[in-house]
Amino acid sequence: MEFTVRQIAVLLNGHVDGDDSLTVSQLAKIEEAKPGSISFLANPKYEAFLYETRASAVIVDHSFIPREPINPTLIRVENAYLAFTQLLEEYYRLISLSRVGVEQPSFMHESTQMGENAYRGAFSYIGKNCKIGQHVKLYPQAYIGDNVCIGDYTVVHSGAKLMDNTVVGNHCVIHPNAVIGADGFGFAPQADGTYKPIPQLGNVILEDNVSVGSNTTIDCATMGSTIIRAGAKLDNLIQIGHNVEIGKNTVIAAQTGVSGSTRLGDNCVIAGQVGFAGHLTIANGTKIGAQSGVGKSVTEEGTSLNGSTAFSLRDNMRSQAIFRRLPDLERRLNELEKKSQ
Amino acid sequence: MEFTVRQIAVLLNGHVDGDDSLTVSQLAKIEEAKPGSISFLANPKYEAFLYETRASAVIVDHSFIPREPINPTLIRVENAYLAFTQLLEEYYRLISLSRVGVEQPSFMHESTQMGENAYRGAFSYIGKNCKIGQHVKLYPQAYIGDNVCIGDYTVVHSGAKLMDNTVVGNHCVIHPNAVIGADGFGFAPQADGTYKPIPQLGNVILEDNVSVGSNTTIDCATMGSTIIRAGAKLDNLIQIGHNVEIGKNTVIAAQTGVSGSTRLGDNCVIAGQVGFAGHLTIANGTKIGAQSGVGKSVTEEGTSLNGSTAFSLRDNMRSQAIFRRLPDLERRLNELEKKSQ
Amino acid sequence: MEFTVRQIAVLLNGHVDGDDSLTVSQLAKIEEAKPGSISFLANPKYEAFLYETRASAVIVDHSFIPREPINPTLIRVENAYLAFTQLLEEYYRLISLSRVGVEQPSFMHESTQMGENAYRGAFSYIGKNCKIGQHVKLYPQAYIGDNVCIGDYTVVHSGAKLMDNTVVGNHCVIHPNAVIGADGFGFAPQADGTYKPIPQLGNVILEDNVSVGSNTTIDCATMGSTIIRAGAKLDNLIQIGHNVEIGKNTVIAAQTGVSGSTRLGDNCVIAGQVGFAGHLTIANGTKIGAQSGVGKSVTEEGTSLNGSTAFSLRDNMRSQAIFRRLPDLERRLNELEKKSQ
Repeated sequence: MEFTVRQIAVLLNGHVDGDDSLTVSQLAKIEEAKPGSISFLANPKYEAFLYETRASAVIVDHSFIPREPINPTLIRVENAYLAFTQLLEEYYRLISLSRVGVEQPSFMHESTQMGENAYRGAFSYIGKNCKIGQHVKLYPQAYIGDNVCIGDYTVVHSGAKLMDNTVVGNHCVIHPNAVIGADGFGFAPQADGTYKPIPQLGNVILEDNVSVGSNTTIDCATMGSTIIRAGAKLDNLIQIGHNVEIGKNTVIAAQTGVSGSTRLGDNCVIAGQVGFAGHLTIANGTKIGAQSGVGKSVTEEGTSLNGSTAFSLRDNMRSQAIFRRLPDLERRLNELEKKSQ
Repeated sequence: MEFTVRQIAVLLNGHVDGDDSLTVSQLAKIEEAKPGSISFLANPKYEAFLYETRASAVIVDHSFIPREPINPTLIRVENAYLAFTQLLEEYYRLISLSRVGVEQPSFMHESTQMGENAYRGAFSYIGKNCKIGQHVKLYPQAYIGDNVCIGDYTVVHSGAKLMDNTVVGNHCVIHPNAVIGADGFGFAPQADGTYKPIPQLGNVILEDNVSVGSNTTIDCATMGSTIIRAGAKLDNLIQIGHNVEIGKNTVIAAQTGVSGSTRLGDNCVIAGQVGFAGHLTIANGTKIGAQSGVGKSVTEEGTSLNGSTAFSLRDNMRSQAIFRRLPDLERRLNELEKKSQ
Repeated sequence: MEFTVRQIAVLLNGHVDGDDSLTVSQLAKIEEAKPGSISFLANPKYEAFLYETRASAVIVDHSFIPREPINPTLIRVENAYLAFTQLLEEYYRLISLSRVGVEQPSFMHESTQMGENAYRGAFSYIGKNCKIGQHVKLYPQAYIGDNVCIGDYTVVHSGAKLMDNTVVGNHCVIHPNAVIGADGFGFAPQADGTYKPIPQLGNVILEDNVSVGSNTTIDCATMGSTIIRAGAKLDNLIQIGHNVEIGKNTVIAAQTGVSGSTRLGDNCVIAGQVGFAGHLTIANGTKIGAQSGVGKSVTEEGTSLNGSTAFSLRDNMRSQAIFRRLPDLERRLNELEKKSQ
């Protein structure tokens, strides 16, 4: 998409210094910008780049006074950083809403209907009795099983799989190759040492504004629902076990795993590669450090834990510091023993 | 699917208290049940829910005597819990066998044939010279390479990839987006610092009753076979390196990784996020705690290990307990040193 | 593919002892070989297998003198091991170049063109304005978004997803279900506790000879590029965050995660299940042990680190050894305290 500097200045409620008929088609960092790009200068630390940049236009604060001659057209606004962010969001919105219609071949069972302004990519599949909202985008090779409900403005990227009975709210984003609602890992040990699968008949519910990362897996409940509450954000390659519940606005970084029936509260912040044992309850606002292993429930809100096995962040840091000095501790102990003989 | 209470009572060899013409179409926990659901009461602890439940029917023990009036129809059986489990399995069997036939477009090379009662979903792909058994289900967007053998009653879910020469037994389940038989990670370092790929010409063999979780990856052998023995169950997001062997009825939880050429024995229980170094031999019945890192072979059967690096579970627990008290140990050491001066 | 022993001897510049008209179609280990296979004997330790093998032909050194009568035809060469490796590579090259042409149905936007000798599998998808080189193989169900560039001889396996604006060099291999260029995990916390997605407008660049493992995810940059330098090899289930840079010929084992904006140098060797915090700079030639957690930048080239949190490998090994003996240390401390009272 291509815009004139004049169009962008109007959008941002700014004033133009220079040629307002130039066209720009890309957003870029000031030090990496090429002709045809628009960039911004907010931090005075980067001012030197302004005099060298190849950007066609740069957004600056109203108050900015250049110390040297400059090539790009300037767009002056109240707050250059916020204006650029606004531009990013607008641009992103245009991109993500641009796909509409049906590419062929694609498969949709006759019992299913999609809402208005939807996109259905080639090789996407939709099973029986699904309800798909308005402005939904199903990218190529996405899979929607039977009896799935998807709210408005939700995006299901290429290769993502929503298994039977999954319920997805509005404004969710499911990234490529994520798997939602496959069988939980439940097996009953038999007398002869073999395992018999326990039927997994529940489903997964994603409330509104949930984001699920690429190749992340969320298992369906044995009975009932595995639930991801509104506004929760899951990064890539995360494992969510059966009957887990993730609270509102809880954020989980990549490669973390949550075992079956554990409930994370609201507004938790979980770093990467963390593991949670099963059947725990984690209080609202809990923070867990990277690679921690959480083996017990957390009852006090706002607790910070670290380590494998995890305990209080502060205490863990102290123990870790001494762990490094263990050879020194042992040496001191040896000396004391010699003395005391 | 919809059944009358009478039909279910006959299936479970039970007696009906109440209206046996009611229809039910869902299985549910007693506290979450809606009209049209059937539930069960086995644990007296949950009896209170019986007097409030909206379930249409509830399975109870023959001996159960209600203390209050109840709404749902009762089905009385010898053992309510077992009867409900039986119902779950029957229901699951009906669902999983329900898909038969070929959806179009799908791709099968002319040199390949599928057995009777098979399902081939839209956008599934089957290469040359494959042998596909009876009652096999290939869900949409599944990929079967060349020279692949699949036994009877095996299910390959949407987006799962079985690369060339893979051999899969009977009654296996491959969950969505699992990748079986891609190249192992083998590279020969060259004098100039670059790496040259070592051709990976082996395959993967899954014996009967193997389950492979969503987004799990099992690499093909360099030569020979990577083997998953009968009854082994792998959870989601697991990495199995080239030339690995996983023993019979061994269970591995999510996000664990097994490096190349390591052999796990039979009946092992491996928790989540565990790592195994390469070229190890792990004895039958070994148990490994979550997030452990196993760097040495295990020779004694039934060993329990924990920690990264892993050692005996009992000793690891003791060391971990002291790790938490390290600041205290250091303080005590400081005091002893002061005294001894 | 089938070859006569004579054809292979010519390829390897070897001499034949026995029937050179036999045909072979498989490469195998000497102890596992079946009729129709060719194998090799390089290590005298395995000589006994030569007298029992069912292989049709075996490659041996010129100097080899059998102590017993043998069944297979021998191909005598300068160095049996190197010759067999050469054969493996040749065989692999033949396999991987064998697919050419277009299978239907597949989808390619009219604005895109592929180079000569390319393969496009069924259900593969290519978006707008892509540039695809010569001898490129896109396997079934691969997805190429808009504005993607792919160099010559690159292979994109089944189910791999290359999102919009991705740039891939020559001779790269993208394994099944890998996801390259999906949104980075960037969210701005709002006053009400919710998170607003930060538009991710950058891309991913893979230089030449890069290998990306199955189900590995490489996020696009917020702005600018996430870059994997020439010759880097990534194993399966790895997470590469936005704006990360991986240096030339750096090798990363499975299930490792690299957080946003971290830069790994050239020729690093990173083991499995390692985690890197964000915004670090890691010097060339750094080696990191399995399951380590790297929280600080590494400035000295050739450093070896281990542990979570990671520090010098040698010191970490010493601390770990004492960690195991902590119960003993505590006991000794208790005794000293008793004595000193």
